[in-house]
Amino acid sequence: MSLTNRQYRLAARPVGMPKPSDWNLTSETVAEPADGQVLIKVLQLSLDPAMRGWMNEGKSYIPPVGIGEVMRAGGVGKVVASKNPKFAAGDHVAGYFGVQEYCLADPARLTQIGLSKIDLRMGTPSQWLNALGMPGMTGYFGLLEVGQPKAGETVVVSGAAGAVGQTVGQVAKIKGCRAIGIAGGREKCDFAVRELHYDACIDYKMGSLKEGLKEHCPKGVDVYFDNVGGDILDTVLTRINRKARIVICGAISQYNNTTPVKGPSNYLSLLVNRARMEGMVVFDWAERYGEAIRDISEWMREGRFASKEDIVEGFEAFPETLNKLFSGGNFGKLVLQVAKE
Amino acid sequence: MSLTNRQYRLAARPVGMPKPSDWNLTSETVAEPADGQVLIKVLQLSLDPAMRGWMNEGKSYIPPVGIGEVMRAGGVGKVVASKNPKFAAGDHVAGYFGVQEYCLADPARLTQIGLSKIDLRMGTPSQWLNALGMPGMTGYFGLLEVGQPKAGETVVVSGAAGAVGQTVGQVAKIKGCRAIGIAGGREKCDFAVRELHYDACIDYKMGSLKEGLKEHCPKGVDVYFDNVGGDILDTVLTRINRKARIVICGAISQYNNTTPVKGPSNYLSLLVNRARMEGMVVFDWAERYGEAIRDISEWMREGRFASKEDIVEGFEAFPETLNKLFSGGNFGKLVLQVAKE
Repeated sequence: MSLTNRQYRLAARPVGMPKPSDWNLTSETVAEPADGQVLIKVLQLSLDPAMRGWMNEGKSYIPPVGIGEVMRAGGVGKVVASKNPKFAAGDHVAGYFGVQEYCLADPARLTQIGLSKIDLRMGTPSQWLNALGMPGMTGYFGLLEVGQPKAGETVVVSGAAGAVGQTVGQVAKIKGCRAIGIAGGREKCDFAVRELHYDACIDYKMGSLKEGLKEHCPKGVDVYFDNVGGDILDTVLTRINRKARIVICGAISQYNNTTPVKGPSNYLSLLVNRARMEGMVVFDWAERYGEAIRDISEWMREGRFASKEDIVEGFEAFPETLNKLFSGGNFGKLVLQVAKE
Repeated sequence: MSLTNRQYRLAARPVGMPKPSDWNLTSETVAEPADGQVLIKVLQLSLDPAMRGWMNEGKSYIPPVGIGEVMRAGGVGKVVASKNPKFAAGDHVAGYFGVQEYCLADPARLTQIGLSKIDLRMGTPSQWLNALGMPGMTGYFGLLEVGQPKAGETVVVSGAAGAVGQTVGQVAKIKGCRAIGIAGGREKCDFAVRELHYDACIDYKMGSLKEGLKEHCPKGVDVYFDNVGGDILDTVLTRINRKARIVICGAISQYNNTTPVKGPSNYLSLLVNRARMEGMVVFDWAERYGEAIRDISEWMREGRFASKEDIVEGFEAFPETLNKLFSGGNFGKLVLQVAKE
């Protein structure tokens, strides 16, 4: 067996939107697994807004990707060779494989990579990157643990049709809340209502978000799950209720800024409304992922929960596909299909 | 008895810092109390940052003061005549009397005014406007209930020498925390350490706040009690710990803005640190004021807690004295002495 592994490495720290020259496409021969190692063929990669943050220098919740390193990314794959008793050739696995076609996982790094077997009876590979993966875990624990919604309350979600947003909206509905999405463009909003069970979805690119919130949240906003930041966060702040909870999950509108992040000018609405704004990082709930996977896969089986992915083919499409996230081009969770089984 | 009552009424909604022309000084003869009414001679008035907000139009946690109305203010006074069985001439009382020399309190408005007797054995009249009054209640419940400090944690307080700040800092110390103040000017910082028991106080006008926080909070910031907003909030956000709690009590740096409020650009530090920012309004704890008054007056008796007021003489000094709050001129809680007993 002599396999070639191609890899996207970070060539430069992007200024604003990542450019082709920020990447190096490298190639090397795959080594045979040594004792304890597992060789994985990457089938699909998860493309997430958080990846933009990992490309920047500076302290965050995990270290940045170093210049010259393979770009960090989660994925699903198939074990092609194993010298580790816990994994066998043919196993389907998920983990942080990086943007490459093969991942040779060291015993010392198995935990760091988060290598785990996945059960394809519970969901397709791409669903394991979405509802049963990081975005699903983020939406589930972010909404339920940080947002603390009560039945009958109104939950508003930005990036409603994205990976995390779709879980938040659907979990809110299942828990008896009114779920209102915010997304860019009529088609995406229609998709959110039709496929993702939102009560309504407001197109922030068309007309006034404030008016949309007045119309669709007549009793105000109790929980706001924010994936986007910027003006949208600021506008929702004007419509929150007493004791509202704002979950800060991301700020995709700000990730490619070359000017400072726009802080929420209306943050004093937190004071007037005795409300709170709280940040979350999904890794904090790692020990409880099993709970969420059990619930979500059960809801999927019952037809109450849809896991929607936008799958783009071809390893070499990585650079422009990643940028789709920031231009709002994706419908559902963005996945790169690297290889077929 | 024919008494004259002078009153400061709001003449115009200020743009930026209140100007003399935003006030009307009016005068009228005081009526005799009718059945159920209480006539109070105002001794001292509490001047608070929140008053600036009450002068603006628009929805907030209480209605704005109307044009032509007596300006809202809390105070302490002495009952001079009463036709209400619950109050007798000679009683000392506290309540929202407004910026006037006499307050004729209607039975229907007693609760709205918050009229209550005060016990001068527990504190002086000005202490009843400070540590035993609204600022004390705000600092006590804001820190303990919203900030949730644990012994050994680091608590940072802006407006450290002000009315609310002094309570927060001292309660933090009593609860076993490290208390670090932020204030403007060397003298005020010295006052905070010497009189108010802070471990250290950083002069934000001199040198770098960020460096000061590094030096005095070597283990980071667990609780930040914010009275000022603006750049100070933004800088503290860069030094918070995991699971930090930011109490949003006010934003005095922004109250006289003629441009939009400066939102905290570094709010994504909440995400990275899984931290929260929560607003508070003291009235929510009204039913528990007794607890705080009991604790604070006990600490005062034991010499562990100082209630420091900056008392300015003369009713007519009201307009320029109020503005001292916004120029940072006051040391301790700002009080206007309207009359002697």
